Amino acid sequence: GDTWFSPHVPVLQIIEKEINPFVDKWEEECMFPAHRVFKILGSAGFLGVNKPIEYGGLGLDFSYSLAVAEELGNIRCGGIPMAIGVQSDMATPALTRFGSDELKKEFLQPTISGDKVACLGVSEVGAGSDVASIKTKAVRNGDDLIINGGKMWTTNGTQADWMCLLANTSEGPPHRNKSLICLPMKLPGIHIARKIDKIGMRSSDTAEIFFEDVRVPYKNIIGQEGMGFMYQMLQFQEERLWGVANCLTMMENVIQETIDYTRQRKIFQQPILHHQAVHFRLAELQTEVELLRSLLYCTTAMYIRGNDVTKQASMAKLKAGRLAREVPDSCLQFWGGMGFCSDVMVSRFYRDFRVLSIGAGADEVMLSIICKYMNTLPKK
Amino acid sequence: GDTWFSPHVPVLQIIEKEINPFVDKWEEECMFPAHRVFKILGSAGFLGVNKPIEYGGLGLDFSYSLAVAEELGNIRCGGIPMAIGVQSDMATPALTRFGSDELKKEFLQPTISGDKVACLGVSEVGAGSDVASIKTKAVRNGDDLIINGGKMWTTNGTQADWMCLLANTSEGPPHRNKSLICLPMKLPGIHIARKIDKIGMRSSDTAEIFFEDVRVPYKNIIGQEGMGFMYQMLQFQEERLWGVANCLTMMENVIQETIDYTRQRKIFQQPILHHQAVHFRLAELQTEVELLRSLLYCTTAMYIRGNDVTKQASMAKLKAGRLAREVPDSCLQFWGGMGFCSDVMVSRFYRDFRVLSIGAGADEVMLSIICKYMNTLPKK
Amino acid sequence: GDTWFSPHVPVLQIIEKEINPFVDKWEEECMFPAHRVFKILGSAGFLGVNKPIEYGGLGLDFSYSLAVAEELGNIRCGGIPMAIGVQSDMATPALTRFGSDELKKEFLQPTISGDKVACLGVSEVGAGSDVASIKTKAVRNGDDLIINGGKMWTTNGTQADWMCLLANTSEGPPHRNKSLICLPMKLPGIHIARKIDKIGMRSSDTAEIFFEDVRVPYKNIIGQEGMGFMYQMLQFQEERLWGVANCLTMMENVIQETIDYTRQRKIFQQPILHHQAVHFRLAELQTEVELLRSLLYCTTAMYIRGNDVTKQASMAKLKAGRLAREVPDSCLQFWGGMGFCSDVMVSRFYRDFRVLSIGAGADEVMLSIICKYMNTLPKK
Amino acid sequence: GDTWFSPHVPVLQIIEKEINPFVDKWEEECMFPAHRVFKILGSAGFLGVNKPIEYGGLGLDFSYSLAVAEELGNIRCGGIPMAIGVQSDMATPALTRFGSDELKKEFLQPTISGDKVACLGVSEVGAGSDVASIKTKAVRNGDDLIINGGKMWTTNGTQADWMCLLANTSEGPPHRNKSLICLPMKLPGIHIARKIDKIGMRSSDTAEIFFEDVRVPYKNIIGQEGMGFMYQMLQFQEERLWGVANCLTMMENVIQETIDYTRQRKIFQQPILHHQAVHFRLAELQTEVELLRSLLYCTTAMYIRGNDVTKQASMAKLKAGRLAREVPDSCLQFWGGMGFCSDVMVSRFYRDFRVLSIGAGADEVMLSIICKYMNTLPKK
Repeated sequence: GDTWFSPHVPVLQIIEKEINPFVDKWEEECMFPAHRVFKILGSAGFLGVNKPIEYGGLGLDFSYSLAVAEELGNIRCGGIPMAIGVQSDMATPALTRFGSDELKKEFLQPTISGDKVACLGVSEVGAGSDVASIKTKAVRNGDDLIINGGKMWTTNGTQADWMCLLANTSEGPPHRNKSLICLPMKLPGIHIARKIDKIGMRSSDTAEIFFEDVRVPYKNIIGQEGMGFMYQMLQFQEERLWGVANCLTMMENVIQETIDYTRQRKIFQQPILHHQAVHFRLAELQTEVELLRSLLYCTTAMYIRGNDVTKQASMAKLKAGRLAREVPDSCLQFWGGMGFCSDVMVSRFYRDFRVLSIGAGADEVMLSIICKYMNTLPKK
Repeated sequence: GDTWFSPHVPVLQIIEKEINPFVDKWEEECMFPAHRVFKILGSAGFLGVNKPIEYGGLGLDFSYSLAVAEELGNIRCGGIPMAIGVQSDMATPALTRFGSDELKKEFLQPTISGDKVACLGVSEVGAGSDVASIKTKAVRNGDDLIINGGKMWTTNGTQADWMCLLANTSEGPPHRNKSLICLPMKLPGIHIARKIDKIGMRSSDTAEIFFEDVRVPYKNIIGQEGMGFMYQMLQFQEERLWGVANCLTMMENVIQETIDYTRQRKIFQQPILHHQAVHFRLAELQTEVELLRSLLYCTTAMYIRGNDVTKQASMAKLKAGRLAREVPDSCLQFWGGMGFCSDVMVSRFYRDFRVLSIGAGADEVMLSIICKYMNTLPKK
Repeated sequence: GDTWFSPHVPVLQIIEKEINPFVDKWEEECMFPAHRVFKILGSAGFLGVNKPIEYGGLGLDFSYSLAVAEELGNIRCGGIPMAIGVQSDMATPALTRFGSDELKKEFLQPTISGDKVACLGVSEVGAGSDVASIKTKAVRNGDDLIINGGKMWTTNGTQADWMCLLANTSEGPPHRNKSLICLPMKLPGIHIARKIDKIGMRSSDTAEIFFEDVRVPYKNIIGQEGMGFMYQMLQFQEERLWGVANCLTMMENVIQETIDYTRQRKIFQQPILHHQAVHFRLAELQTEVELLRSLLYCTTAMYIRGNDVTKQASMAKLKAGRLAREVPDSCLQFWGGMGFCSDVMVSRFYRDFRVLSIGAGADEVMLSIICKYMNTLPKK
Repeated sequence: GDTWFSPHVPVLQIIEKEINPFVDKWEEECMFPAHRVFKILGSAGFLGVNKPIEYGGLGLDFSYSLAVAEELGNIRCGGIPMAIGVQSDMATPALTRFGSDELKKEFLQPTISGDKVACLGVSEVGAGSDVASIKTKAVRNGDDLIINGGKMWTTNGTQADWMCLLANTSEGPPHRNKSLICLPMKLPGIHIARKIDKIGMRSSDTAEIFFEDVRVPYKNIIGQEGMGFMYQMLQFQEERLWGVANCLTMMENVIQETIDYTRQRKIFQQPILHHQAVHFRLAELQTEVELLRSLLYCTTAMYIRGNDVTKQASMAKLKAGRLAREVPDSCLQFWGGMGFCSDVMVSRFYRDFRVLSIGAGADEVMLSIICKYMNTLPKK
């Protein structure tokens, strides 16, 4: 693969030509044309980097997906990369690994090609990070499942063609009673309750969705019934590593733009950059970014060799969430009043990346996972 | 004074009845009706708490102004209190103390009554915190001054009837060549270049303004010509203390709303609040708020007894700027996904109060002032 | 009071003449001559500043005690001031307020005069900050109490003539079954198990003490039997405020000595002090010190007016514990290799004041108290 | 390589048998028997892991040296590992790479075997981190150099048989006028001025040394005359990476011992460990350690492939210095009063590792180097 696959050039070209020129507009409209953008990316192979060739993927390992995630960090907002990540690496890992050939043909293949938009239905009102306590039910009825409940914070939710849905399919213990289900979104009983108005990630639509007696074939369950919680936990590893890779580029770009800006603006007779408090602080931030990058790379290397990296991925996600708040906040300061304006990248990322400590498992959930692996949690 | 003046009740009444019900709308519109709101506040006496009775003020000391500033912190956004503060305590202290009777009649009296909206013209492009290096000039021409240049980040700038303008009135050394000037805003040659699109403080309009051969009587200079920089430094003390007082209430409210919200939401089988990481963190934040409140009160007591409190006011401003970032950021985390939504107070204040470390002298300027008083700066 | 009582001069004189010249030696010897030093201080009135005149005190309010505590911060180590504080303000508040005249004659009066050395027996092995769970028992036997158990971390413990001892005097609920007892230390059955080897506060002796059938008159109970826990909680307020006042001076001195040292040492062709990272950091530290000082003064003013200041005193103690780690640690850095030497003040205070976050209720206990007052703790 | 060289077992055996049983005694005595300990380590090959086989080394790459450095972190103090590191990886890299065969035979070979103790003479009074400004001179006189000046903070200085000395050998620009010189320590004119009394690293002797007309052959210059500054900068890379590797183990051990201790001690009816504030904090610390470990491993991999890793090594050193303060300080807190005692590992490391932010280039020097590589420093 290495010789013919050089993801850096074409992804950047697509970003520069098809995405960045429209970002401000899409941010303003609180929506971006997912079908159009995903088709472009899908045609170039970027939505299935580590997916099997037989379903249209490139058949590479996950480290290549992360290389693409890093490149996507060059998009001048956080929302569109996140939406792409949902499509390529968050809603589909379980389907790829555990789904039937029939399901993959119907859902995975068009997702890789960019013909269908995917979303992930895990979070619910009052159970954001506490996945085990979700309430949505999918009750078997003959060859069908009948779904009732609702999902919250669903990225791509207003545009999606299908959802990778986590629902309770039995009464058992919360870690053993859930299933992941491929759910077409145009079915009767699916209501897009509202598009959520967020302080950041504005070009990415986030939906609240209700299910009222939605009927879907039982065979749309991914893999084994009852294994949904476990599958989702696995799926989260790739989601989290993807998020880390993506925000690394954002942070490097913010630091570099801040260097460029402060070099040319003077205060008290010298460039802002030349004040020691400024360049020392930027060096500290760059150091933290480099630490995070190293952890990502070491973790990825372990992961593609088949190791359980739950602890390391959780550590990387935790640090990424905190650093993605600290870097834009600290840099914004050096932009002065300009940093408080909506039309600079640093202020957009200040708003956008606040979500990283919350979504895909909040910082506190990451800490709990790490504690579990350190064996320091109280026994229940 | 004390017996008849009980600011707490009526200010809160005005806020609850005339302001808070409209805040969401005004935030949406990026504008609030300053003339209407200020007239209500002015009629009740709240725009001239420490101003002389002869010009319509209440004749109380500055600690009463700060009490009102604290009450105004109950407005459910940062922009409107800031706009009020400009009117009552930022654009007028120098005029009150050093202005001629004629100027006070023309500008101070209607500002106190709420009939005229004031703004403060200090910051310029490329000279936000570095006041000494402003470029706007007011050149004497007979009995007039002819003004050229421009101002940036002007709160109330699109609605103001007059500006307290800092301009260079001679060629001398930068701390001795400036004057404060009462400038009516409807004059020929004044162009409101644009309303700045900010990430927070959205209901408050912020203007960029250009002056092209604007003619104003020479006698509109406040106090002595050439003393503008010194006057503005004095004026900054009240601006900074006012900002500290105002944000204290915001921070207490954010902590309290977070307690209320997390008490009723459960995660992992218990209220979010009851996780030790949550209530310990809130206790740390409350401790820092209490520290800041104490410093404000001690500093104010010194100030109204006539002491130079430049160092202490700068310390309070520095801490306020940092704490007003830390409190909403930390609290937002405990709201989970809701914290990332635009319609909760915590996310609004997360955006709004980011400016406190930048405006009215950035953190780095405060540090320099403190260093100056500690005698630790290198000699130039 | 004010005119005749000017504590600043004479305390400083005693410190400069009778204490500081010997501090290095006493630190080396891990012991200071408490009887000699206390007699000097007692004769000058400094061990009973807020104690009743009839027992030899000065009859002033507690704010004067804190003024003395601040002055004692000029001693060039942390251990001796702490030992003095135990004598003057930690072991005696309950006795002063609730003890019988007979007990005060026997124990308070000679403690104020410096003829007897006092210690406070609260902490035990495994119950440092969790006072309610102490195990030492004092069982009534006729007119006597028979005491068994042990105390840990007892400041002045190897030199003390008497101990203000907290012990369980009944089986009841842990907040209602304890009493404070005046215990002479030369009684049979009292074993000084060892002098504890600490990383700081080395000139102050800290003992582990065992009680084996120690017999003391029942009337040595201070105030009401069973009220010991409550009394100790009250006593803690003064202990904590005293500790805050004392460490303020230490921090100011450390900052000032660091300024003086870094001004005269050059690195990279300019004084260390003139690097912005240095003087800005010192300004931040000074700001935090000023915040703490303000909280102490506001809290003290409330306290001497009769208010419950448990929350504020706990906040001040929490902040003091953290700041007393941060200030010496940050300053030490600017001393370079010299900071790592034993014979500079900054490194001594780096070691000494680490204990402030642990003793007199650890930071975590302070946080719990604050939470209790914020009503954010889970119900048991 | 790999199959026959398994450093983990034997190093640990030596540590457990020959070092750890004596550490408390050596700490007490402020000295350890370097010749005895080094001979044992040298005989087992651990003083020349990456040194050429022909001089007695193992001929492995530098990553193996770091593996040994990590293992040496299991010594129960910081001073002895540091002393070993000076011998194996700080005083000898330049000699190994640039020295003549004659010099290597005389100085490198016995250092690798443990027959001679080495020290590194770079720091001077008033030029700790500012290496370019050292004052010691070595003036050519026939076939000799005559050395005058002095060195400060010299680890192993009172026991060393030879010093790798940095001295000015000409008048040129400060980066081009220095040489590294192999200096036997038993020569006339070398005075060990004093053993410095430090707050930590106590078992390791640190000397102040004066040179008065010390005569050494000119051919004792390592490599090229005038290249000493450059050589030392290279030498610093290995010193810094070695220090990072060594402190990683210390930090992991401190965290693990804290887990073990807090698991068995109860406060408020449950193990200290089970308080969320405790196990969450330990998880945060472990995360930071993992980040640092990843950066070390990535940097080392780059280094042994021949890349310039000055920026990355400086970042790792900076982070290590800060984390090695934060980990013991935070953990010590959870030990309560025990943490303040001299005989627990956590308090020893609290004292010992404070030096890591100061020695081998202070944090501020690391920041400057990083800035240089980020191109953010003002031009001189």
